[in-house]
Amino acid sequence: MKTLTVDLGDRSYPIFIGQGLLNQAELVKPYVKGSQVLIVSNTTVAPLYMAQAKQAFAGFDVQEVILPDGEEYKNLETLDMIFAAALKHRFDRKCTFVALGGGVIGDMTGFAAAAYQRGVNFIQMPTTLLAQVDSSVGGKTGVNHPLGKNMIGAFHQPQCVVIDTLTLNTLADRELSAGLAEVIKYGLIQDAPFFAWLEQNLPGLVKKQPDLIVEAIERSCQCKADVVASDEKESGVRAHLNLGHTFGHAIEAGMGYGNWLHGEGVSAGTMQAVYLSRLLGDLTQADQDRIQAIFEQANLPVLPPSQSALPNQTYLDLMAGDKKSQAGKIRFVLLKAIGQAYVTGDYPAELLTQTLNEWRATA
Amino acid sequence: MKTLTVDLGDRSYPIFIGQGLLNQAELVKPYVKGSQVLIVSNTTVAPLYMAQAKQAFAGFDVQEVILPDGEEYKNLETLDMIFAAALKHRFDRKCTFVALGGGVIGDMTGFAAAAYQRGVNFIQMPTTLLAQVDSSVGGKTGVNHPLGKNMIGAFHQPQCVVIDTLTLNTLADRELSAGLAEVIKYGLIQDAPFFAWLEQNLPGLVKKQPDLIVEAIERSCQCKADVVASDEKESGVRAHLNLGHTFGHAIEAGMGYGNWLHGEGVSAGTMQAVYLSRLLGDLTQADQDRIQAIFEQANLPVLPPSQSALPNQTYLDLMAGDKKSQAGKIRFVLLKAIGQAYVTGDYPAELLTQTLNEWRATA
Repeated sequence: MKTLTVDLGDRSYPIFIGQGLLNQAELVKPYVKGSQVLIVSNTTVAPLYMAQAKQAFAGFDVQEVILPDGEEYKNLETLDMIFAAALKHRFDRKCTFVALGGGVIGDMTGFAAAAYQRGVNFIQMPTTLLAQVDSSVGGKTGVNHPLGKNMIGAFHQPQCVVIDTLTLNTLADRELSAGLAEVIKYGLIQDAPFFAWLEQNLPGLVKKQPDLIVEAIERSCQCKADVVASDEKESGVRAHLNLGHTFGHAIEAGMGYGNWLHGEGVSAGTMQAVYLSRLLGDLTQADQDRIQAIFEQANLPVLPPSQSALPNQTYLDLMAGDKKSQAGKIRFVLLKAIGQAYVTGDYPAELLTQTLNEWRATA
Repeated sequence: MKTLTVDLGDRSYPIFIGQGLLNQAELVKPYVKGSQVLIVSNTTVAPLYMAQAKQAFAGFDVQEVILPDGEEYKNLETLDMIFAAALKHRFDRKCTFVALGGGVIGDMTGFAAAAYQRGVNFIQMPTTLLAQVDSSVGGKTGVNHPLGKNMIGAFHQPQCVVIDTLTLNTLADRELSAGLAEVIKYGLIQDAPFFAWLEQNLPGLVKKQPDLIVEAIERSCQCKADVVASDEKESGVRAHLNLGHTFGHAIEAGMGYGNWLHGEGVSAGTMQAVYLSRLLGDLTQADQDRIQAIFEQANLPVLPPSQSALPNQTYLDLMAGDKKSQAGKIRFVLLKAIGQAYVTGDYPAELLTQTLNEWRATA
């Protein structure tokens, strides 16, 4: 087992990474303050892993709530199922919520924990690659709104993160690929050697080769932990983690939540950011080709939906609502080079239009 | 104009108290960080004061959202109206929400501000006595759940609080009385001289005599500011502010939100806490009579609903869900003397039953 630490002063917490951690009671016990534990999962994950997770909390008053599975349920209405379960079982302010599932479960459980009785503890037990390398670390929680993704939420750090890599054995290939999009992102924004390592090892990662999976998760979590420790509330460098996300969130919202996976939107969206970075003269055609090749190796889409499916104006309207926007100006994370990201709202509007026109699916 | 300060380090903020402050642009301007202002009000208050409040934010991009009026609308569904308005107008992370109304508007606007894009600024402009002396100060925000009052929320401090005492001229007598319940509370929990002052001056306060109103608000806000500064997240002394609230919240929930005003629940609930304190031997019959007399002078109910309207078991079930509860034990704020409160879960169960049986409306 590997242990990393997210260094946030008195809110610091460990990330445990290894095989078979999900049912380890001694591991999580120190992170449960009261006697009541609510495990939040969904209809896909609960049948596979709820029993193991309950073993980890043996001896506590454990209750469960099972949400429908999918990004389209990441809203205030489904969130209320968590509150109702906690209230029905008379959970008090010292209770602990546990997120057992992917990014949607983690984001919703974290926000429910932030808001329940104005804040209770929570533990992340991510079961998808995307959640393990990204969303379970860093305390960003929330739900979507019909008018924008992750628009309602809170910064609320977990007590610990338990990453059991065995859970990836049951993960669908499409979900694994979606997680790889965020892994590749870390290389692109700040770690060129990691990007090169990924170019070498993607075939093995796609086949879930255990040692490679553990190394990819560990390096990704270390990147995330470093960024979060230096900028918890995203006043600066943390925004780099949103490479491809402004474009990608617009794809997800515009095509209807749940149709494009988050990682798929990030992959196509990152290619748009890369294309714009090339038009701005920072990336070369060779850079663009390398990045396209690695996403394709991961079986991810590199082109956003066609003009007819997502017209430019709809695209721009959706992106204008992005949380990085300031006074109506869309701001993007772009690349100066592979391994070096920056945020800007200062680009020629026609280059954005050119990107939206030229880098597109044709069907 | 009087200015008090809530001392919370880098989150400190001023409370301005005076006549005709609502439209003073110079007063609020330093507390608006971005260019966008969303004023949240309700169908009762907006026709009276929205125009004045808009004058205060002249020069900004001001939008408004008008909620239905009443505690029964303090829920996640109505909260969504605030998010939808902000998103529709493309409000970004530097925007400011303004709460123009009573406690319900303040609590909901504050929670919306805490959760919108994971946190934006907000300003309190309370227009009821209850909001001016209590709920607008201290950063407790939230909404109700069918299974419990204020169960979903956040600690989120405002940038400033603007108390225009002229707004009380349009306040219904019943609402004024409800506010006086919280004013009396400050005397009871920590300020015996203030309690004695109130005994002298309640007739003038009920008649809204301006100098007395300003003094009562100022002394109440100073009490609240002191308590909040010493215990922002309610790990100790802040719980004293909940005198009468465990009983009172159960009355509000049990009788259906909106039927009993919050201050009315607090009045009858405080009398129950007083009765229990007397049974415990801490208060005398003379104390109880003084306290009953002052609530009656304020035209407030002193008896909770009858056994048939709110049976003991329902009462106990509702109270067991209180946020102060720990491991199923109902904890109460009680009085050692007038001016001296404490929190306890350590009382003979039969004295609670005796209180619920004996101190009751008979109809």
